[in-house]
Amino acid sequence: MIKAGIVGGTGYTGVELLRILAGHPAVRLAAITSRGEAGTKVADMFPSLRRRVALDFVAPENAALEQCDVVFFATPNGIAMQQAAALVAAGVRIIDLAADFRLRDAAEWEKWYGMRHAAPELLAEAVYGLPEVNRAQIRKARVLANPGCYPTAVQLGFLPLLEAGAVAHDSLIADAKSGVSGAGRKAAVASLYAEASDNFKAYGVGGHRHLPEIRQGLSRMTGNEEIGLTFVPHLTPMVRGIHATLYARLKRPMSERDLQELFETRFAGETFVDILPPGSHPETRSVRASNMCRIAVHKPRDGEMIVVLSVIDNLVKGAAGQAVQNMNIMFGEDERLGLDTLPVSP
Amino acid sequence: MIKAGIVGGTGYTGVELLRILAGHPAVRLAAITSRGEAGTKVADMFPSLRRRVALDFVAPENAALEQCDVVFFATPNGIAMQQAAALVAAGVRIIDLAADFRLRDAAEWEKWYGMRHAAPELLAEAVYGLPEVNRAQIRKARVLANPGCYPTAVQLGFLPLLEAGAVAHDSLIADAKSGVSGAGRKAAVASLYAEASDNFKAYGVGGHRHLPEIRQGLSRMTGNEEIGLTFVPHLTPMVRGIHATLYARLKRPMSERDLQELFETRFAGETFVDILPPGSHPETRSVRASNMCRIAVHKPRDGEMIVVLSVIDNLVKGAAGQAVQNMNIMFGEDERLGLDTLPVSP
Amino acid sequence: MIKAGIVGGTGYTGVELLRILAGHPAVRLAAITSRGEAGTKVADMFPSLRRRVALDFVAPENAALEQCDVVFFATPNGIAMQQAAALVAAGVRIIDLAADFRLRDAAEWEKWYGMRHAAPELLAEAVYGLPEVNRAQIRKARVLANPGCYPTAVQLGFLPLLEAGAVAHDSLIADAKSGVSGAGRKAAVASLYAEASDNFKAYGVGGHRHLPEIRQGLSRMTGNEEIGLTFVPHLTPMVRGIHATLYARLKRPMSERDLQELFETRFAGETFVDILPPGSHPETRSVRASNMCRIAVHKPRDGEMIVVLSVIDNLVKGAAGQAVQNMNIMFGEDERLGLDTLPVSP
Amino acid sequence: MIKAGIVGGTGYTGVELLRILAGHPAVRLAAITSRGEAGTKVADMFPSLRRRVALDFVAPENAALEQCDVVFFATPNGIAMQQAAALVAAGVRIIDLAADFRLRDAAEWEKWYGMRHAAPELLAEAVYGLPEVNRAQIRKARVLANPGCYPTAVQLGFLPLLEAGAVAHDSLIADAKSGVSGAGRKAAVASLYAEASDNFKAYGVGGHRHLPEIRQGLSRMTGNEEIGLTFVPHLTPMVRGIHATLYARLKRPMSERDLQELFETRFAGETFVDILPPGSHPETRSVRASNMCRIAVHKPRDGEMIVVLSVIDNLVKGAAGQAVQNMNIMFGEDERLGLDTLPVSP
Repeated sequence: MIKAGIVGGTGYTGVELLRILAGHPAVRLAAITSRGEAGTKVADMFPSLRRRVALDFVAPENAALEQCDVVFFATPNGIAMQQAAALVAAGVRIIDLAADFRLRDAAEWEKWYGMRHAAPELLAEAVYGLPEVNRAQIRKARVLANPGCYPTAVQLGFLPLLEAGAVAHDSLIADAKSGVSGAGRKAAVASLYAEASDNFKAYGVGGHRHLPEIRQGLSRMTGNEEIGLTFVPHLTPMVRGIHATLYARLKRPMSERDLQELFETRFAGETFVDILPPGSHPETRSVRASNMCRIAVHKPRDGEMIVVLSVIDNLVKGAAGQAVQNMNIMFGEDERLGLDTLPVSP
Repeated sequence: MIKAGIVGGTGYTGVELLRILAGHPAVRLAAITSRGEAGTKVADMFPSLRRRVALDFVAPENAALEQCDVVFFATPNGIAMQQAAALVAAGVRIIDLAADFRLRDAAEWEKWYGMRHAAPELLAEAVYGLPEVNRAQIRKARVLANPGCYPTAVQLGFLPLLEAGAVAHDSLIADAKSGVSGAGRKAAVASLYAEASDNFKAYGVGGHRHLPEIRQGLSRMTGNEEIGLTFVPHLTPMVRGIHATLYARLKRPMSERDLQELFETRFAGETFVDILPPGSHPETRSVRASNMCRIAVHKPRDGEMIVVLSVIDNLVKGAAGQAVQNMNIMFGEDERLGLDTLPVSP
Repeated sequence: MIKAGIVGGTGYTGVELLRILAGHPAVRLAAITSRGEAGTKVADMFPSLRRRVALDFVAPENAALEQCDVVFFATPNGIAMQQAAALVAAGVRIIDLAADFRLRDAAEWEKWYGMRHAAPELLAEAVYGLPEVNRAQIRKARVLANPGCYPTAVQLGFLPLLEAGAVAHDSLIADAKSGVSGAGRKAAVASLYAEASDNFKAYGVGGHRHLPEIRQGLSRMTGNEEIGLTFVPHLTPMVRGIHATLYARLKRPMSERDLQELFETRFAGETFVDILPPGSHPETRSVRASNMCRIAVHKPRDGEMIVVLSVIDNLVKGAAGQAVQNMNIMFGEDERLGLDTLPVSP
Repeated sequence: MIKAGIVGGTGYTGVELLRILAGHPAVRLAAITSRGEAGTKVADMFPSLRRRVALDFVAPENAALEQCDVVFFATPNGIAMQQAAALVAAGVRIIDLAADFRLRDAAEWEKWYGMRHAAPELLAEAVYGLPEVNRAQIRKARVLANPGCYPTAVQLGFLPLLEAGAVAHDSLIADAKSGVSGAGRKAAVASLYAEASDNFKAYGVGGHRHLPEIRQGLSRMTGNEEIGLTFVPHLTPMVRGIHATLYARLKRPMSERDLQELFETRFAGETFVDILPPGSHPETRSVRASNMCRIAVHKPRDGEMIVVLSVIDNLVKGAAGQAVQNMNIMFGEDERLGLDTLPVSP
């Protein structure tokens, strides 16, 4: 059994991690920390976990995290980087669901996240946890940077096109739409039901923190070319789900059939990427509460502009599910373990 | 392995049954029928099942249902009663998720459902599948009538009070609220998003088909007394979930603590009924996509009127999940098999 | 022109008041105060008001409210009672949309609201602003207590029955459902989209502040009898709307037709109460963004239990609209002025 | 008073037209036709109109439409083109809210709409009713083609850029999101609450009927250049609202400030187009139930790619409201008449 600890489990990512790990046959949940909620039963805060999760939140200093095999950080940005070094030194492997280890360039990270990086030396060894790209390195990772939700949907959608050099990488567009759970379980007026319901809006058009993460990932796919990407995130009135609509211009003639084959071949062995038949439009609910990413590729009216549609559940493949997928890889388990529940639809 | 067939799997009850059975370790899905969709891949109609359900819909005559161990009817009312006798004769056990076998009185059934009952002789032996009341009979059932969604939430909420003779049974009130999936996957203007969203309404105040079913069930709990029940169903803008708010007047003094004990004791051994601590308000999302019923009992301002709050997922404990729970009992399996996934929240 | 001021316009009640008053032909908006937002353009906080409301928020001390004809308090409980006396002394008429002047009994008020009442002497003269009950007194009011949202829907629904002595007043039940805007524009986890969406729950079953207000109102209708009322509020996933489902037991035989006539006669002259035909189920969206209350009365299965369905928009007839209706009455204007826009549906 | 008739008022466009016209001070509603609902009170079908619209639906042959000043067609595509000629001959002016007269090229129309055009001669004189482009011709129009919802949001957003020749017109992208009311009040499984709620998807990526309409409009703005446009519509779980996210590449250097000025200057005199301050993100709810279009223009990270955000209410500025705005222009009334109610938010 893998002995797992969770730091900061009071947000949506944390409760989703609990939901998945509570049903994982090879994991024993050892501790979950929360300074503010120490002593509270987890199931009192999240009644959906009653009868299934018996843990109390404990203060970090009482959690004995250094005795875990793996510790998940489901914390705000800036926490994992302060605690990772000591845990790694104690032989614990780290999976950070926040952004602390996602960018390789510490200066870039500091610009976007507005704080000093506390562990730049770990950035060098941290592995970016997108299994479909990086599986070999993930196996050996001591510090794993779990990708952001938008970056997961966008990178998987562009991946075959960029690896194949099929499209111009200087003028990519990612028009992405997210459910409101992406804003987290924080009391904020903009996330109130009465604000977010029956409403649609863009945000962060001037610059969103996921932009450098996506650009870095796409750049690797092209052999480190510089990426020109316009990224516009939107808030849509649903709880879970991301839908990325991606636009790229073909550099050389390819038929819709060629494109379909390119995608199917690239993801042939992947359990959690499903390429839909030509002409399909994936729906976010078809992946709700599951770790699946579904993708369709279109060549509208046989023009040069390719449209890729990519959907995930932001809390699963976009966060907690991918973290568990990474843990499975790191510990040599079957990648699907604990992640085989079917999507919930309707 | 239990060899299972499904008749009529194109509605929400059907797809939910598929979701549960596809993950059930002791079931092999043998066939799913649909006259209208024969030849269509199930996963083409329900993309959430891609990679997990490989079946095609088949025409009923080609389904070899008589070779199944169990056949689920996820059909409109009036279908199962026509096909049950032949299947039972072939040794197949029947679980009807529609209403054909729910009322013991054929005349009453015909009044409410507006058609002639095709198998009144099977009504006599049919077992009403509320495991918390009827487990022993369910074990041996050849024809099992799976309860309606409202009746499940309402009966479980009133059960301890009526069995104990604690409340007046001539003036019960059940004010129930259902998500829109309860109306089924039928093209109907009233169920359109633009009609049902951001809207709340009662319906069927004059009389709803679940009323006689609930009355019959409550009557059994009292030793066949006549039940006075006002039942008002409402439509609330959510996909899944039923919330029943139940009102009953105490016949003799009981403290809130007595009531709490009464409920906890009655459901002590039940896997799928969870009595919340005093003062709680169960939320429908705390049972979403799970077979759990959560209940809280209140005695507001220490008066005579008791308020019970009871929530289920209408598609799971109110339909497909309870059907699988019944199947597990009928075939001697652990009651939880295939039903152990945690609720999805948020 | 009526010169109007608003104290505390940053909540949903405030912006709704602005929406209505900006279109009111006999009102000039003189000032709107907010200590926290002083200097901010109202339309920067509420873009829906761009081009229609040119005011800035001002600090209370700079608002010259004593020069207004009427001042609306769209503030939290406990503010209006501190400022009312000075304004009344200056000849300003007060309309409080919060609860400060709703209960006649200061001790009762202090028990429910947990603070000392700052102006008990004004409680004596304050007029409860339910026009369908109290129109004559409203005309002369200097301090008007605008009713709560639940109390409006519940009182209008019970009104004909209680005035006529038709039902037992010792065992009334009000099962009420509210949209989430009723919780106000406050950053609170429980009101987040990801918490309140696709979810239904009761709250405050043990006791809600609107209970004494409703009981007081119902008692007046019976000639000050003591009222036995069980009141259970629920939160339903929609922005606007209240649906009250009311249960009362007939004291003497009345047919459904008698009941229909009773309701139609009682509200015959009322612009903002609409009695639906027998057998109807009013929908909240049929009153969305309007000051209308729609009511249907049922006698299910010809029994003794009467069911009344009553719907309003909680922000209009349940708050800002009723406040403007009261203002119209107080200043001798046509009651409909500024309130004649049609409901928005779908 | 303008005597107005409506053909086909049982859909969302029809009821919205009724809502607006019932409050229009210069219009008398003479007749509303529906073959299927002849004899039904309009307010029985749409209870939100009770007490405000006294009309019954009448069969077309009994409607005396030829005595109206103006007839609105709120019908499916293919109806107006059959009846327009006779009405025009009788001196009636036609406003078609469907697509019959939107494309100037009959062959193109027949290709996209899959039927023979019944009145190609009227296509020649039909005026495309986008007032911000076409006001002078609208004044004299006998047959007015009211624009589609997507085309309104997209054309207004691109208008200043294309008229000024500021962007490349061969690689425009319009990523548009619509509320579900855009699908109409038709019983269809895909529009059910349980299908469309908590879900997001693209549709019609291969080709949508609004594409040729948008291309035609954009082409006029460039002096009839050919337009390269990728148009991807999406369905988002809300009732009303369209959000268009538009991407265009600058042909020559322009600062964000230049762009802001370009937009503000172009729409300076327009009542129903509101250019937001730099850095803004318009929300669909800020225009809900109003005829306003709000637009923001961005130049992300000072690159070449311009992003325009444009929001309307699809049923108002995208349908019935714009139709009334056109009627006001055609009959020499103030353009705002009947359209001055404020947006409803929250």
